[in-house]
Amino acid sequence: MTIERRAPRNDDVAIRITHCGICHSDLHMAHNDWGMSIYPMVPGHEIVGIVTAVGPDVTKYKVGDKVAVGCLVDSCQKCHQCTSGHEQFCVEGATLTYSSLDRRDGTITFGGYSDHIVTRQEFVLKLPDSLDISRAAPLLCAGITTYSPLKKYGVGPGQKVGVAGLGGLGHMGVKIAHALGAHVTMITTSPGKGDDARALGADEVLISKDADAMNAAAGTFDFILDTIPVGHDVNPYLNLLAPNGNMVLVGAIEPLPSVHGGLLAMRNRTLAGSLIGGLPETQEMLDFCGEHGIHPEIETIKLDEVNEAYDRLVRGDVRYRFVIDIEASRPAT
Amino acid sequence: MTIERRAPRNDDVAIRITHCGICHSDLHMAHNDWGMSIYPMVPGHEIVGIVTAVGPDVTKYKVGDKVAVGCLVDSCQKCHQCTSGHEQFCVEGATLTYSSLDRRDGTITFGGYSDHIVTRQEFVLKLPDSLDISRAAPLLCAGITTYSPLKKYGVGPGQKVGVAGLGGLGHMGVKIAHALGAHVTMITTSPGKGDDARALGADEVLISKDADAMNAAAGTFDFILDTIPVGHDVNPYLNLLAPNGNMVLVGAIEPLPSVHGGLLAMRNRTLAGSLIGGLPETQEMLDFCGEHGIHPEIETIKLDEVNEAYDRLVRGDVRYRFVIDIEASRPAT
Repeated sequence: MTIERRAPRNDDVAIRITHCGICHSDLHMAHNDWGMSIYPMVPGHEIVGIVTAVGPDVTKYKVGDKVAVGCLVDSCQKCHQCTSGHEQFCVEGATLTYSSLDRRDGTITFGGYSDHIVTRQEFVLKLPDSLDISRAAPLLCAGITTYSPLKKYGVGPGQKVGVAGLGGLGHMGVKIAHALGAHVTMITTSPGKGDDARALGADEVLISKDADAMNAAAGTFDFILDTIPVGHDVNPYLNLLAPNGNMVLVGAIEPLPSVHGGLLAMRNRTLAGSLIGGLPETQEMLDFCGEHGIHPEIETIKLDEVNEAYDRLVRGDVRYRFVIDIEASRPAT
Repeated sequence: MTIERRAPRNDDVAIRITHCGICHSDLHMAHNDWGMSIYPMVPGHEIVGIVTAVGPDVTKYKVGDKVAVGCLVDSCQKCHQCTSGHEQFCVEGATLTYSSLDRRDGTITFGGYSDHIVTRQEFVLKLPDSLDISRAAPLLCAGITTYSPLKKYGVGPGQKVGVAGLGGLGHMGVKIAHALGAHVTMITTSPGKGDDARALGADEVLISKDADAMNAAAGTFDFILDTIPVGHDVNPYLNLLAPNGNMVLVGAIEPLPSVHGGLLAMRNRTLAGSLIGGLPETQEMLDFCGEHGIHPEIETIKLDEVNEAYDRLVRGDVRYRFVIDIEASRPAT
């Protein structure tokens, strides 16, 4: 079937999509694993492209601009969450980039596995010139998901930071924490990932199955970014935190096995969670990555290779994010 | 047997104890529930009294001063935790007020169920004149344990704060959160505690067994202080937090049933823990309580009633803290 995009409204920006990242959540949404999917569906919320048209009220962008769209395409813009830059927590509910209902006309929103997208200007981000548009797309979800908690907890020089799990999120966590000036340790079950982690910017590698190494590192981390994408025992990681240390979950949106209250209370530790970021912080992240030359590590595919990519994603067989080259996937004209 | 206190060292303050609070942890320590007890034992770490003698190097106190001693009596005073006022996390290990080993001579420390105590001046606190010495003792543990997380998370006017559990800690949490200017909701399983909670300063009462009320309150709290003293399902409480809301455990130093990662991640929520406070913050708390006229609600007993008090503590039969009137328990001379 053909998905029609709306003609630009007065405040809309029309974007010719050049690339779109594949997020693991696309797979869950496609399969309705979370019971919230709306069909027909066009997944994709890591979108970059070029502005092709703007509505008459658009002031932020002009035709030809390099832009990006992330997980959100609308919100009320009036509540305290929206006005403080946390649109993802809009009191009325944010409109997601795909499989959500447009706030104005109730039509289904469609994402970035597509040739173009039309979005109101407030939800369009500027892609810094220093970023390579063919590699930047995963910043829109994997980038902001890791940047936001690192910034919230003030990660920077002099701090010992752990990143648990080396996948789409984890590899961005290592790169950003390193660029923020922290001493970064990759915490992984797989000794085989050590070289990769170091190449990404990790100063050390801690094997989580090595009980002696885990004991030796107990109480030494200021911050841990836990990107492990499934429910898992967080107690061994909490035990790595120093007093007043913070650990943030960005992957496991599932039940966790029993957490020991004493690991939190006896050392003023924190177990938190984090969900993407608002629009101002997403722009800040893009600018930061532009300034520091931070790109995701990607494998580029064509649009007709998505099903195969999903199969490989299930097996964890990607280093570290698939990006669909939409530009190269267009039918010859 | 007779417990001999040491003669004051050069930097010691000798204190005639007038009152000592009974903390639930005294019961666990007396019974060696945590496997760390050292006998003979004199429990008690909520101590107030009058200075009777000072060593020649003591500059902070003089004979006749009203003073207090809390959970700590010594630490290295050199590590980054000590020098930043977090002596409870001393890298070398803080010396506890009782059932611990003195750093200098290795003797067992003895607590406040006793006629006097000798402590180095850095670990002696000034009791503000505006506090009633006969009622102030529980501030030294229950007071600082609740004050510290309320301050760390910036609780104040315009914030909606929940206090879960109405016991020795919870009742102090309500009083202090109220004095800090927050809108306070007591969250309790027991409708019968509503009137008490309001009398303590709660603006509202939320019955945690009332599913409709819990649903209606979902996502509305900025901060929850969880004083429930045993392992319990924290998910219903996490669900009450607004985006970026924080919940702090101060009671449950036990395994918690499964925590749902999505409750944390999807709303940037935090589940943290907190352990007493350092010396500077404990003094700040005493000064704050003095300024605001905050006293614990207590039941005064004599020293020979401690065993009975312990039995009642196990049954939760105290509103809200036992204080031993040491002064009234002295043998007639």
